[in-house]
Amino acid sequence: MSAVSSTPKKSLMLFSGRAHPELAEEVAKELDVTITPQSAYDFANGEIFVRFEESVRGCDAFVLQSHTQPINQWLMEQLIMIDALKRASAKRITAVVPFYGYARQDKKHRGREPISARLVADLLKTAGAHRIMTIDLHTDQIQGFFDGPVDHLLANKVLAEHLRDAYSGEDLAVVAPDSGRVRVAEKWADTMGGVPLAFIHKSRDKTRPNEVVANRVVGDVEGRCCILVDDMIDTGGTIAKATEALLKDGASDVVIAATHGVLSGPAIERLSSCGAREVIVTNTLPIPDEKRFPQLTVLSVAPLIARAVREVFEDGSVTNLFDGNA
Amino acid sequence: MSAVSSTPKKSLMLFSGRAHPELAEEVAKELDVTITPQSAYDFANGEIFVRFEESVRGCDAFVLQSHTQPINQWLMEQLIMIDALKRASAKRITAVVPFYGYARQDKKHRGREPISARLVADLLKTAGAHRIMTIDLHTDQIQGFFDGPVDHLLANKVLAEHLRDAYSGEDLAVVAPDSGRVRVAEKWADTMGGVPLAFIHKSRDKTRPNEVVANRVVGDVEGRCCILVDDMIDTGGTIAKATEALLKDGASDVVIAATHGVLSGPAIERLSSCGAREVIVTNTLPIPDEKRFPQLTVLSVAPLIARAVREVFEDGSVTNLFDGNA
Amino acid sequence: MSAVSSTPKKSLMLFSGRAHPELAEEVAKELDVTITPQSAYDFANGEIFVRFEESVRGCDAFVLQSHTQPINQWLMEQLIMIDALKRASAKRITAVVPFYGYARQDKKHRGREPISARLVADLLKTAGAHRIMTIDLHTDQIQGFFDGPVDHLLANKVLAEHLRDAYSGEDLAVVAPDSGRVRVAEKWADTMGGVPLAFIHKSRDKTRPNEVVANRVVGDVEGRCCILVDDMIDTGGTIAKATEALLKDGASDVVIAATHGVLSGPAIERLSSCGAREVIVTNTLPIPDEKRFPQLTVLSVAPLIARAVREVFEDGSVTNLFDGNA
Amino acid sequence: MSAVSSTPKKSLMLFSGRAHPELAEEVAKELDVTITPQSAYDFANGEIFVRFEESVRGCDAFVLQSHTQPINQWLMEQLIMIDALKRASAKRITAVVPFYGYARQDKKHRGREPISARLVADLLKTAGAHRIMTIDLHTDQIQGFFDGPVDHLLANKVLAEHLRDAYSGEDLAVVAPDSGRVRVAEKWADTMGGVPLAFIHKSRDKTRPNEVVANRVVGDVEGRCCILVDDMIDTGGTIAKATEALLKDGASDVVIAATHGVLSGPAIERLSSCGAREVIVTNTLPIPDEKRFPQLTVLSVAPLIARAVREVFEDGSVTNLFDGNA
Amino acid sequence: MSAVSSTPKKSLMLFSGRAHPELAEEVAKELDVTITPQSAYDFANGEIFVRFEESVRGCDAFVLQSHTQPINQWLMEQLIMIDALKRASAKRITAVVPFYGYARQDKKHRGREPISARLVADLLKTAGAHRIMTIDLHTDQIQGFFDGPVDHLLANKVLAEHLRDAYSGEDLAVVAPDSGRVRVAEKWADTMGGVPLAFIHKSRDKTRPNEVVANRVVGDVEGRCCILVDDMIDTGGTIAKATEALLKDGASDVVIAATHGVLSGPAIERLSSCGAREVIVTNTLPIPDEKRFPQLTVLSVAPLIARAVREVFEDGSVTNLFDGNA
Amino acid sequence: MSAVSSTPKKSLMLFSGRAHPELAEEVAKELDVTITPQSAYDFANGEIFVRFEESVRGCDAFVLQSHTQPINQWLMEQLIMIDALKRASAKRITAVVPFYGYARQDKKHRGREPISARLVADLLKTAGAHRIMTIDLHTDQIQGFFDGPVDHLLANKVLAEHLRDAYSGEDLAVVAPDSGRVRVAEKWADTMGGVPLAFIHKSRDKTRPNEVVANRVVGDVEGRCCILVDDMIDTGGTIAKATEALLKDGASDVVIAATHGVLSGPAIERLSSCGAREVIVTNTLPIPDEKRFPQLTVLSVAPLIARAVREVFEDGSVTNLFDGNA
Repeated sequence: MSAVSSTPKKSLMLFSGRAHPELAEEVAKELDVTITPQSAYDFANGEIFVRFEESVRGCDAFVLQSHTQPINQWLMEQLIMIDALKRASAKRITAVVPFYGYARQDKKHRGREPISARLVADLLKTAGAHRIMTIDLHTDQIQGFFDGPVDHLLANKVLAEHLRDAYSGEDLAVVAPDSGRVRVAEKWADTMGGVPLAFIHKSRDKTRPNEVVANRVVGDVEGRCCILVDDMIDTGGTIAKATEALLKDGASDVVIAATHGVLSGPAIERLSSCGAREVIVTNTLPIPDEKRFPQLTVLSVAPLIARAVREVFEDGSVTNLFDGNA
Repeated sequence: MSAVSSTPKKSLMLFSGRAHPELAEEVAKELDVTITPQSAYDFANGEIFVRFEESVRGCDAFVLQSHTQPINQWLMEQLIMIDALKRASAKRITAVVPFYGYARQDKKHRGREPISARLVADLLKTAGAHRIMTIDLHTDQIQGFFDGPVDHLLANKVLAEHLRDAYSGEDLAVVAPDSGRVRVAEKWADTMGGVPLAFIHKSRDKTRPNEVVANRVVGDVEGRCCILVDDMIDTGGTIAKATEALLKDGASDVVIAATHGVLSGPAIERLSSCGAREVIVTNTLPIPDEKRFPQLTVLSVAPLIARAVREVFEDGSVTNLFDGNA
Repeated sequence: MSAVSSTPKKSLMLFSGRAHPELAEEVAKELDVTITPQSAYDFANGEIFVRFEESVRGCDAFVLQSHTQPINQWLMEQLIMIDALKRASAKRITAVVPFYGYARQDKKHRGREPISARLVADLLKTAGAHRIMTIDLHTDQIQGFFDGPVDHLLANKVLAEHLRDAYSGEDLAVVAPDSGRVRVAEKWADTMGGVPLAFIHKSRDKTRPNEVVANRVVGDVEGRCCILVDDMIDTGGTIAKATEALLKDGASDVVIAATHGVLSGPAIERLSSCGAREVIVTNTLPIPDEKRFPQLTVLSVAPLIARAVREVFEDGSVTNLFDGNA
Repeated sequence: MSAVSSTPKKSLMLFSGRAHPELAEEVAKELDVTITPQSAYDFANGEIFVRFEESVRGCDAFVLQSHTQPINQWLMEQLIMIDALKRASAKRITAVVPFYGYARQDKKHRGREPISARLVADLLKTAGAHRIMTIDLHTDQIQGFFDGPVDHLLANKVLAEHLRDAYSGEDLAVVAPDSGRVRVAEKWADTMGGVPLAFIHKSRDKTRPNEVVANRVVGDVEGRCCILVDDMIDTGGTIAKATEALLKDGASDVVIAATHGVLSGPAIERLSSCGAREVIVTNTLPIPDEKRFPQLTVLSVAPLIARAVREVFEDGSVTNLFDGNA
Repeated sequence: MSAVSSTPKKSLMLFSGRAHPELAEEVAKELDVTITPQSAYDFANGEIFVRFEESVRGCDAFVLQSHTQPINQWLMEQLIMIDALKRASAKRITAVVPFYGYARQDKKHRGREPISARLVADLLKTAGAHRIMTIDLHTDQIQGFFDGPVDHLLANKVLAEHLRDAYSGEDLAVVAPDSGRVRVAEKWADTMGGVPLAFIHKSRDKTRPNEVVANRVVGDVEGRCCILVDDMIDTGGTIAKATEALLKDGASDVVIAATHGVLSGPAIERLSSCGAREVIVTNTLPIPDEKRFPQLTVLSVAPLIARAVREVFEDGSVTNLFDGNA
Repeated sequence: MSAVSSTPKKSLMLFSGRAHPELAEEVAKELDVTITPQSAYDFANGEIFVRFEESVRGCDAFVLQSHTQPINQWLMEQLIMIDALKRASAKRITAVVPFYGYARQDKKHRGREPISARLVADLLKTAGAHRIMTIDLHTDQIQGFFDGPVDHLLANKVLAEHLRDAYSGEDLAVVAPDSGRVRVAEKWADTMGGVPLAFIHKSRDKTRPNEVVANRVVGDVEGRCCILVDDMIDTGGTIAKATEALLKDGASDVVIAATHGVLSGPAIERLSSCGAREVIVTNTLPIPDEKRFPQLTVLSVAPLIARAVREVFEDGSVTNLFDGNA
């Protein structure tokens, strides 16, 4: 008999790009591992260099990078890390992307546009990622952009628990900030126990069809504490306007809940002054001190990611973490 | 000089599977071509055989097949036709799919489900299709499932013209049959000139969360002629219930408009008896005589497909056919 | 040291499409597993839906589906199951196809035909199958259509054992039903211990070249019990005519043996009335009661499949199951 | 309008490896082109170098190489030429392979064997070939090994014309040299006008199953001029033994006809002394003077290749060259 | 006859990312086209959006983007533009990359590093580029990283002409700034007419092997005007030290010539104060006014790119532009 | 619970082509395995046949073949072995290539050339290799030609140890035989402890630019024992001329050190008579007795390969074998 036999081992290794090291540290702590040490820096002309300082041969690699600003830089860093892992004989590579960049460009809104969300999936695959783990995609269809397994985690539970703790006694309504998010709001309404549903309709003037003339509330919100839900808050314009419309229509209070706190440009000012009682986001993206304001609550997704990573590593079930829904 | 030179020609050839020959004939007439003759039949055990009776070498092939019942049979026939074209040296192959099968399985609704709409895109690619032409996809994201050009035609215009001709004088509202189609309904409301918007909310009882207890209309429809819009009507259950709810809530009339008339099982009975004044669909799917009923209007997409095929063949612009929106 | 290590496990899971559940049950019993529970049904318009009810993460999946009627339906179901397994992180996926559909379209018989047997291999690969396990392919070359391992099981042994038990005392000849199966018949003749060989030659009239004028027996069969062998019996026309020609030429008896009992259309009538003493097939395809007739013997391939699955799972040798021939 | 427009040209360029320059020259003459000049030589350690001496940008390239001895050398040269064409922006690359190497390894005869004929197809694809043109493949299924168009030319016609001219007055039979070629012989029998068919059966002793004890003629050949047909003659052992068996069984004459004259090792001696009246092959492989013997007739396939190349270049029909059979 | 035939047209369209619009404008002017109008901007969170304002269907697209700072941003923009072109049915897409980013990471200098130059080639391919056009790659091997045609333009000629005009009367030497560029310097020495060659050797102390102790000139430079050549100048450290070493060793003058003026960080200060008589670069990268200093000469590569684009479009020869060397 | 679970095993199997069995035997001895028995022979027309005589299912396969003469034959044999392993369900396949053929064709030296080193990488991938292990590539960039892990072993250490043992007391210089190898020589100079560096400059006459007129030594070698280093010695022309030039310039002695002893054509005569004191190579290529001469020293790389194979099999670190440099 010619072969030499032995029993294989498998080992989980966690890698972190430079986009959101705090989250990676939290996940590492939850998993009781240390982040694999690496050199990562930019050359003078902006080219990124990465090198791992330990052998990664045969490992089950989880490469965490959140696509925060500067988004193209961090996406490229993740691709480079994956390339280095592939060439260094990592056995399996999972790109962990708490916030998936370019998710809003998931279709051609008009002709001659890119579908950048598909492109991102293809780039990850080309670099060498076998799998993707991500949280609350802008649309569920993005899972289908990747030719392989996508572990799609839901942060709703984290947000919903907070909301139930804080607002269970109140007369609630769930509100979608625009017509495209009504389905998601409906799910929230069910999760919150069948509360009423409304949405903001951007109505247009017949004579000037490309201009929004009013944010009209469709559904009954009077006297209710409105939970305004979205997957992300970017510049906060839509959500702030929606808050104002709700308060004008008689809502007793507005609470904003979103998974991803992108919080670009004027977001902080808009959110802190729009009249919302609380703004709840998670830490899928880094939220530095200068972006924090009194009404802001930031919940951590690190325990969620850590549990999912462990299930993936141990061939357990991620679906079961979400009652069959992921 | 070693080479022999000449000026290339290009030739458009139209192919039709056996699923919906009437539509193919109409398109051929519009294009002023004849459908390429072929042998296509089933062997005794159900295996499909196809052979083209003319040379297809170097042609620009358009392979029309609508994914009607039996859907897997017709999908497979289209794949086999594309394989035969590839092996017979067709230069470019466009799968023309007026109704794209499995479009509703465009995401994992729960864990351990397939994403069959992506699978269909991959199967077409594997067989040899370079491009897809389709009409009113269930969700726009499906375009991103295909790694290549998708000409996404919009039948809205066809429907909207009919509606404007027939109902312009009435006091209209546009209604989405469920929370997931509100965005699409909003676009219709704009197209119809900024008319009011509503949707049907399936509310659930707190104590029995998985059961729909009521179809509640969100938005004001009283006294209005409601245009209930959807991309397809399958068994007609949702749309018939929505019609009833609208009428109960005081709508003066309900007109149903959808691109794809799947019309499975009890659809005919439900639609003809639900109280709708008119049910408008197109012929992206065959609608045989036994499925026709007095209120049903069937509009043809053949001119649309023919125009798009011609633009594709002549390197014109499909986008411009839709004012930049496709 | 940054990594968390553990010892991997591997687990065999058996999946069955809806084409031939009896065979899957038999295989499961032989393997002492239960078939993984799943929801699988058709939507009203014929689209198939599948969902697994247990976690399949990391498993070694064997997806059994025999390509019986309606063949395109069951092929598509298998593709959808494989897609769902891939997206749910199954580690390795083997498509178990006791009867491989479209195997007879393994070449272009004339120009502008598809090579559907290659297409089927590519579709399985695209959906996510890493390997194929199949039985008695129409031609061995089909193995080369798949870019990966094919475990090609031989049911000959099962059939040959039965023949030896039943006919060892007789004066035998092995007969090929047409000129294309002489090689296979020759192997049978060797297996049966060097018995004489004959075949049926479809001779044509010089003046009408496309018409078969006679089924002429080439080789000496007089007074012998003829074993007429083929890989499959579809409509039974060729095999029934061959039986008649053999009996006319003085064969003492005719016994028909084929792996795959397709038995389409008029097959039952032809086979039961052609004068054959026994017709032996296996259960690679379902053979319902209404297709059974007195002369029919159905042997089970379940033990064969089960042994092969176990060898594959345990990295044993499938080749050795067949004395080096597979 | 931003674009610069012009009318494209297309140009046919013919390339020849060093394996069989005489055939390439003949084809070039038929096409009225010159073979594109190139540098091609071996480095001291056997590495092949190729460089084209004219621009090939945008051309329709036909790369002729017959897989003669040393076969791996010439296959590799063809791959290298294709790589160079791809990188130099040839528009379309057709590998013209009059004799397709490794065609006999088209399946696993036993476990743990390669399928080298599929490998060759994949290597050509990987190097950059878009299409293959070849002649009389060992088995038709090999067409399915290539993922793209294969123009499969038939040299039968060339051989059959010669046979009809020379032997039309005689009492003929067509004979297959072994059980695997009976189907092909049957086609020949039809082509020759429905003449009788026979084959050589290698019978084995029951007690020594792996040893051929006799070449038994199955079918009636007495007093007939036997046309012994095969796709190729390699060492000539089978064909010479078959000739002897036919003569012993009373054949009046034996004429051997095969497309590919591989003629390795002892072939010349065997063929010239086996008693055959004539041995007919084509020049798909080079047949140097030292391999020629009195009974040998070599027919040229150059006109066939040239016609097919022209049809491919001009988007005509190759199928029509063969009455629909290719 | 079923087909509609016509004569195809081809049209050249030029696209420019936002990295280096001046160069694109120059190229457009040379080609006498206008750059295709597009919308391109960054969303608040840094995601890039691109849309073309004219139909690009069927065009031969040249997408110019130089990988300047912020390099990952501009690389991603180019990928997104290519994706949009692919989905909008451009016929052929050439990524024009005057300066190819990450070229220096063309190998693993140590274990567990990426090969980012290969990754960039793969990303361009994945997005949809069929071809690459680039100038003076850091190493020629990078051409082999792309699976398709690379038009590798040489700016040497542009630089050499300038040098000959300006320094032909002087007593010259060509000097490589380090041991890895001696081959390239040797080519320059030949181009300049066989002038002497030297290079800078970074010698190390035996006792401190990782530290450079001296820049030693190997070769004779005394009294000569030294042409110090490199492919790019990034921070200018190596080249400035080399200049100083040459002057110390008695060089009469130092002239620095490099294709790519990256000019990061302290480059301007170093170059302007190192004692070089002239620093010559091209405009493959933008060189804004604040980077210009008295000794700097910037030559344009626009005519070179325009000529090459035209040859590619018209199926001419790029190789001939460089006397067979590209 | 439906699954059957067990603990996986992994087994290392070593395979050897027929190119360099002595090296394979040495490696096997170091690893304490036996080479997997196989049948491998050439058919009469030169086609290679391979079959493994033991089950390889699930194994970790290392397929050793050195690309010696006849190089295309041995490359093809390796591809065929890999194909057979893939189809026989080997789990992971590493192509072990001590000398990587066609490495010098790693770029287009002029237009319309192939990049054969990339082609070889693609062919290995296509056949089924997951990984490559090789030694001292001609240029490091070739690692980037393979889309997967490359274990690049360095034989320098083996050579350097020998040199240190034999020549440590002498006054050394390291010399590159031409301008392209100066970087490599510089590394050697560091390894040897900071000794002086020189190279041979092929200077050209201004009036006859394509002709080398002199091999000029750049750098100071007088009175020194020169270590002339290269990656391979093919015909020995360059290295012999360099030796002569060094001796003429006053070198006290010349010692030649190269990893790969290709030793084609006149190499033996040139090397044995050029005046070199010792010529040191390794056994990456077979060096039969007739190629041995008094000054030749052959060092074995078998321990190096064996150590690396073990690290790969056991998920250890290959990088660490080379102090982080591989």
